[in-house]
Amino acid sequence: MDNKTFKKITVIGLGLIGSSICRALKKYRITNKIVGYDKNQQVLEKVKNLNIVDSISSNLNDSVLDSDIVFICTPVGSIPIIAKDLQNSLKNGSILTDTGSVKGSICDFFRTNHFEGVNVIPSHPVAGTEKSGPLHGFHELFIGRWCIFTPMANVSQQAINDLKNIWTIFGSKVEIMDPTHHDLVLAITSHLPHLISFNIVGLANDIEKIKESDVVKYSAGGFRDFTRIASSNPIMWRDVFLNNKEAVIEVLGRFIEDLSALQKAIRWEDGDFLEEKFINTRDIRNKIFSAGQGEFEDEKLNKIKKS
Amino acid sequence: MDNKTFKKITVIGLGLIGSSICRALKKYRITNKIVGYDKNQQVLEKVKNLNIVDSISSNLNDSVLDSDIVFICTPVGSIPIIAKDLQNSLKNGSILTDTGSVKGSICDFFRTNHFEGVNVIPSHPVAGTEKSGPLHGFHELFIGRWCIFTPMANVSQQAINDLKNIWTIFGSKVEIMDPTHHDLVLAITSHLPHLISFNIVGLANDIEKIKESDVVKYSAGGFRDFTRIASSNPIMWRDVFLNNKEAVIEVLGRFIEDLSALQKAIRWEDGDFLEEKFINTRDIRNKIFSAGQGEFEDEKLNKIKKS
Repeated sequence: MDNKTFKKITVIGLGLIGSSICRALKKYRITNKIVGYDKNQQVLEKVKNLNIVDSISSNLNDSVLDSDIVFICTPVGSIPIIAKDLQNSLKNGSILTDTGSVKGSICDFFRTNHFEGVNVIPSHPVAGTEKSGPLHGFHELFIGRWCIFTPMANVSQQAINDLKNIWTIFGSKVEIMDPTHHDLVLAITSHLPHLISFNIVGLANDIEKIKESDVVKYSAGGFRDFTRIASSNPIMWRDVFLNNKEAVIEVLGRFIEDLSALQKAIRWEDGDFLEEKFINTRDIRNKIFSAGQGEFEDEKLNKIKKS
Repeated sequence: MDNKTFKKITVIGLGLIGSSICRALKKYRITNKIVGYDKNQQVLEKVKNLNIVDSISSNLNDSVLDSDIVFICTPVGSIPIIAKDLQNSLKNGSILTDTGSVKGSICDFFRTNHFEGVNVIPSHPVAGTEKSGPLHGFHELFIGRWCIFTPMANVSQQAINDLKNIWTIFGSKVEIMDPTHHDLVLAITSHLPHLISFNIVGLANDIEKIKESDVVKYSAGGFRDFTRIASSNPIMWRDVFLNNKEAVIEVLGRFIEDLSALQKAIRWEDGDFLEEKFINTRDIRNKIFSAGQGEFEDEKLNKIKKS
């Protein structure tokens, strides 16, 4: 693998993802200099104290001067605004990338705002925790996770390889995908689960007859699985839903339709319908997660006994 | 603590919960004899091989003769049927209990079917895994979990204490609750989360444009949190929804209402509404789980710096 060392890399937006990228860049010595920018002065101070960048900058355009790679790690809604601001400051031949959870709207922006001489590779590391801010980042965040690239048409293969190399060093697997397909896949695997989690946690608080302490005590019955992702960054998620409107509304509409069918079956005590649905679901789950996951002990045991 | 040893305890239904109870009874030497009954001969054979009971029985009424305590650990729908069958076989002064996830319908049954001389203590250990069957049980399953009792009016305090003592030895905390309140609390903390999980896993499979492999690859974005509980026992869950119809329909109705409001906000791009909802949700979650959970590192660090 070509362990190319870059002269300067800039990370814009130093929250959970941005600060984790800084840590990983430093850990694996990817570049001679890491510059961190954040519009929030308190965040910059924290990052300085953490010693995860070589210098901080409170001037957006200055921060990217002569940078080989610029990572924009802010909420999806602000990525085009920041990119627009940077349009004339980026180094010729450099890579501009981002880490937003929506790719269609980002690619649309770059199609209508041409960045001459810059390799624009919108990307999405499918990684994160429910915590926000630079103190919660860690360099191992990307290990074993996928990073999806949706490169613009005119980027060089070398640029794609360089960025892929970095994510691979971080421990991620890289896949190139069409941005519309990305947004649909993520709508079902990430955006809808988050929306549902936000919704159920809010609902638990609204039901007047139930004390908060009851929700906490009995959350082991299933609820707890939902609360973790419901405490994710509100601004980030607001932007995700606004920017992936079509796909989210499509999957959400179908989700509500299916849920209404289950509701009807419960109301009419249609046990056969429920049982069939749940059996199918279990089969899907088992099929999905069977590969080497140590499941099906019953069957394995039976096979051993028979042989 | 009164470490009373019982002469004989019968466990009916030897799945995940029943077999875990057998294991815990044996581990803590609660009784001189554990008898296991299951209508499924294969399950009985497995339990025999596992050596977690002192004897197996394929005759329901024989299995409970002279038992001090009978645990019914079958799906909720079959509990009244089994109890009815046992009505004339139970020992005078013994305890009859169950482990069903719904308590209202069970208590209704026992109110209209009086069990003369038997201490009926419907109960619900809020514990479980997504796996089913006797091979997946383990004696530690109940440690740190709550077991909710909804005792019938005429049971002796001694019987409640005896059963409470057993669950405490198993590592659980016991709470006595009104069955209607139990069913509402569990509807939101367990039944609705399961229904939603079944629904979203089914939906992921239905969306034609998405390959199964995409769902697996990118499930770290949130989806994976839902799949675990969606592979729970279909029959058990069918019975839960049929037997807790009113409470589940109530919380499900409100869940769909709230979700429709979020859908509308996304459609109309009402970012303020979304942001406010998500901030509230995060606050609720943090409030709920803050007590000694090592959260709020930012704030703690700030306090330390200021002091």
